[in-house]
Amino acid sequence: MISWKNFDTLAAYGKLKALKDHVRLQEAMAGESGAKRVAEYTVPMAEGLQYNYAAKQVDAEVLEALKDLAQEAQLAEKYQALYNGEVINTGEKRLVLHQLCRGQLGGDVVADGVNKREFYVSQQKKAADFAEKVHKGEITNAKGEPFTTVVQIGIGGSDLGPRAMYLALDGWAKANGCFKMEARFISNVDPDDAAAVLKGIDVSRSLFVLVSKSGTTLETLTNESFVKDALKNAGLDASRHMVAVTSETSPLAKSSDYLAAFFMDDYIGGRYSSSSCVGGVVLSLAFGPEIFARFLNGAAAEDKLAANPDLLQNPDMLDALIGVYERNVQGYPATAVLPYSQALSRFPAHLQQLDMESNGKSVNRYGEPVNYVTGPVIFGEPGTNGQHSFYQLLHQGTDIVPLQFVGFRKNQIGMDVDIQGSTSQQKLCANVAAQIMAFACGKKDENPNKSFAGGRPSSIITGDQLTPETLGALLAHFENKVMFQGFVWNLNSFDQEGVQLGKVLAKRVLAHETDGALKAYSEMLDI
Amino acid sequence: MISWKNFDTLAAYGKLKALKDHVRLQEAMAGESGAKRVAEYTVPMAEGLQYNYAAKQVDAEVLEALKDLAQEAQLAEKYQALYNGEVINTGEKRLVLHQLCRGQLGGDVVADGVNKREFYVSQQKKAADFAEKVHKGEITNAKGEPFTTVVQIGIGGSDLGPRAMYLALDGWAKANGCFKMEARFISNVDPDDAAAVLKGIDVSRSLFVLVSKSGTTLETLTNESFVKDALKNAGLDASRHMVAVTSETSPLAKSSDYLAAFFMDDYIGGRYSSSSCVGGVVLSLAFGPEIFARFLNGAAAEDKLAANPDLLQNPDMLDALIGVYERNVQGYPATAVLPYSQALSRFPAHLQQLDMESNGKSVNRYGEPVNYVTGPVIFGEPGTNGQHSFYQLLHQGTDIVPLQFVGFRKNQIGMDVDIQGSTSQQKLCANVAAQIMAFACGKKDENPNKSFAGGRPSSIITGDQLTPETLGALLAHFENKVMFQGFVWNLNSFDQEGVQLGKVLAKRVLAHETDGALKAYSEMLDI
Repeated sequence: MISWKNFDTLAAYGKLKALKDHVRLQEAMAGESGAKRVAEYTVPMAEGLQYNYAAKQVDAEVLEALKDLAQEAQLAEKYQALYNGEVINTGEKRLVLHQLCRGQLGGDVVADGVNKREFYVSQQKKAADFAEKVHKGEITNAKGEPFTTVVQIGIGGSDLGPRAMYLALDGWAKANGCFKMEARFISNVDPDDAAAVLKGIDVSRSLFVLVSKSGTTLETLTNESFVKDALKNAGLDASRHMVAVTSETSPLAKSSDYLAAFFMDDYIGGRYSSSSCVGGVVLSLAFGPEIFARFLNGAAAEDKLAANPDLLQNPDMLDALIGVYERNVQGYPATAVLPYSQALSRFPAHLQQLDMESNGKSVNRYGEPVNYVTGPVIFGEPGTNGQHSFYQLLHQGTDIVPLQFVGFRKNQIGMDVDIQGSTSQQKLCANVAAQIMAFACGKKDENPNKSFAGGRPSSIITGDQLTPETLGALLAHFENKVMFQGFVWNLNSFDQEGVQLGKVLAKRVLAHETDGALKAYSEMLDI
Repeated sequence: MISWKNFDTLAAYGKLKALKDHVRLQEAMAGESGAKRVAEYTVPMAEGLQYNYAAKQVDAEVLEALKDLAQEAQLAEKYQALYNGEVINTGEKRLVLHQLCRGQLGGDVVADGVNKREFYVSQQKKAADFAEKVHKGEITNAKGEPFTTVVQIGIGGSDLGPRAMYLALDGWAKANGCFKMEARFISNVDPDDAAAVLKGIDVSRSLFVLVSKSGTTLETLTNESFVKDALKNAGLDASRHMVAVTSETSPLAKSSDYLAAFFMDDYIGGRYSSSSCVGGVVLSLAFGPEIFARFLNGAAAEDKLAANPDLLQNPDMLDALIGVYERNVQGYPATAVLPYSQALSRFPAHLQQLDMESNGKSVNRYGEPVNYVTGPVIFGEPGTNGQHSFYQLLHQGTDIVPLQFVGFRKNQIGMDVDIQGSTSQQKLCANVAAQIMAFACGKKDENPNKSFAGGRPSSIITGDQLTPETLGALLAHFENKVMFQGFVWNLNSFDQEGVQLGKVLAKRVLAHETDGALKAYSEMLDI
């Protein structure tokens, strides 16, 4: 029997709180003790990835307390309930089924009279068939010319995840002979966004993917009109250049304005939708459906690991609980995500949404205020770039920011250069190894300005190469991490009521139904 | 006589501390009081921009305390000392002269026997002449074909600022007939970065700008070799495709490997170098030297305003001190920068470096530990995109994150679409106005999950349009803000010792001179 309790009502909460500042990394990570930790504090992820937490402020005692927490908070049971189709999104009374897009861990999930796994698979099949027809030249523009570019029109979850995944695989696909079409993305209601994208492409050879679950997202519908105008001005029939990804009940679903429509549903939140058709259509068009299928396989394999009730064998749950320890016991307000991979340049921006929109909340799943901090601020840029930017604060600032590194032994494209006895790839990897140790152990110097206090915790996910499979596993890892943290904090991680008020007020501004300060701001901005 | 004192030794510190939670925005920003604040709490910036701080947690009393602080901390005098050429970067014993690239506020600054303003102007002139020759086809590739693309090779300050500025003006330049060449950027030591850029351009028509002040930056020299290999493989003479931006004493300065060399010096820190030749060469090539000159004019005009000792007439100082109040009195750990302008998509990443690398420090300018928090975490994405991402946490999360909005009344490209009675530009502006009010006042709802506590402070910089001038003013505003905050915290904002340890350890890894955990991590990454 699952019970949903606030974190601070659990016995494990008090035990953990008593373990504040329990591990000093400066000593723990030094010498042979450090080497031993690196060897021991590691857990396999899917697809050959490893989650290594040696440089986190944990030891046997802290891990024991986290195990107790995992058990008392019934994390494994709650995940099970989720993938078996219980109403986990209680606020909106919805199931949470993004994992079903990529596999099935539990029993059949039937909702609204439909087997949901079958439904998602059928939509993927439809997207795959469509993409193949485009690639084979069976679906073309009116002149019979093949499409060369796909443009996703969407915002938030319909943009950040798919865009990050596209960028992550772009170089890999080109180097591995499975690149099919360039992808571009239009998201912002700022008209300069759409205008700049349209100026950079040949619209007559472009296919537009309109993504809106509700079919009512203001930015997306506005940008659709913008694009339709551009197609019309180019003498083109817009309906031959557009497909829709939406829910079956949306106004877009059966419109003759689109070449085809692909469906998702209310059981997949926007920020969890990269493995649904929201990501599937654009990625299948860009790289081919078999690449998207490999990406899903990687995610499914990681989902499976996340079901392990043994905390130390469950990389997603472990990462989550170490994060909870850092947030609620150590009191750190932010977390940086630092992939040492240029292909992951927008992965932190996706995780920023995934994490902050899921767990940036002050009330529990019953709407009661919680008395502890929840989701941290998430930010990040790829390494080594970040080293020459904000790492100064990470090393010597007054606040400690926990770090999440990612590194791969091989690059994607396979071009490299040997300078001063090492390749660029080796330099990249040497830097991430060096950073972990610099953050953990620091270094005393007679000049205090050159001193490093150390004691700054980090973990690293390592892998052989960023491929469709490892990317899928990486994505699922973070989705599951956020989910487990939401369970601990007793939040509903699957709604986003915090975005509503701004929408309501913006409508009021546009209708000129304002007074006071809102009217003053509107006038300042010439509305 | 200037004296450098720790913030917590000032009388103003205690006075400010006593004003914690002094203003409740929920009431202050409601009704007519709110409208009055919007009208009153505004100060002109350069080039028609306005800094409006009505939605910050200040009132007459807090502002009075901030005025006292400005005076007691001698902010105006310290800025004066800086622009008159005193050794403000005490750790490295250097002057701090980036403002001299764009104007001269004080007396002549002579260092190393050279009038520095004349030196910077001479380099700008050299860059302008070079760019004009490229544009006129007087400097071409070996076949006599004009160059069409400029590729900046640099990292940190040689990348983030120039890249953000390029993206900020790209659409504007194209719409205003002053676009000359596409620019691309190679920064990361990850070989996939250079490989992807090279695959996307015609190297035979590309000019590469190698930017490294010391001429020894690992990433940049590695990428230079990478590019030279590519040029050689294409049968091209690399020395006809490369220019250098460096210091006169660097190994790059007199090399015959380059078509030309443009100089900066040690008195301009990397993160402050967008208005030096580090930004000047690539921006002059991309848009023409007159556009770069207009950008400098905007920055110079803002620098002038920053010299005003009257806090309420000095937007840069005021923004800085409100930030100090939020950080040290209110205790907020992070700040979000949210430009409602797609062209400013990478401006937050630049500010992240500018701010976190300058003020992410724990010792004062004499190397003594400080007993107060210094620079916050800085992050941000353009609006409205962020609204569909991390704004959930900003509205309803357990921590308060102060916000810095930016908004323009006109877009850059001039294409727009009218849907439901308003243009995209109006929707964009309506959203930022709405957000300010939603954050400040919140909204009670019977369902606590749909309630917004409010009390979340923000400011907004508004302007007519993002142009070279307003971009320059905006950049200078933040540079000056960071400088003033550094003065209050008694930091040396112009060194970055925190980046050194990682470099030293990375070299050790590459030389295989490691043991313990560092060796273990190195092996894990196959080095």
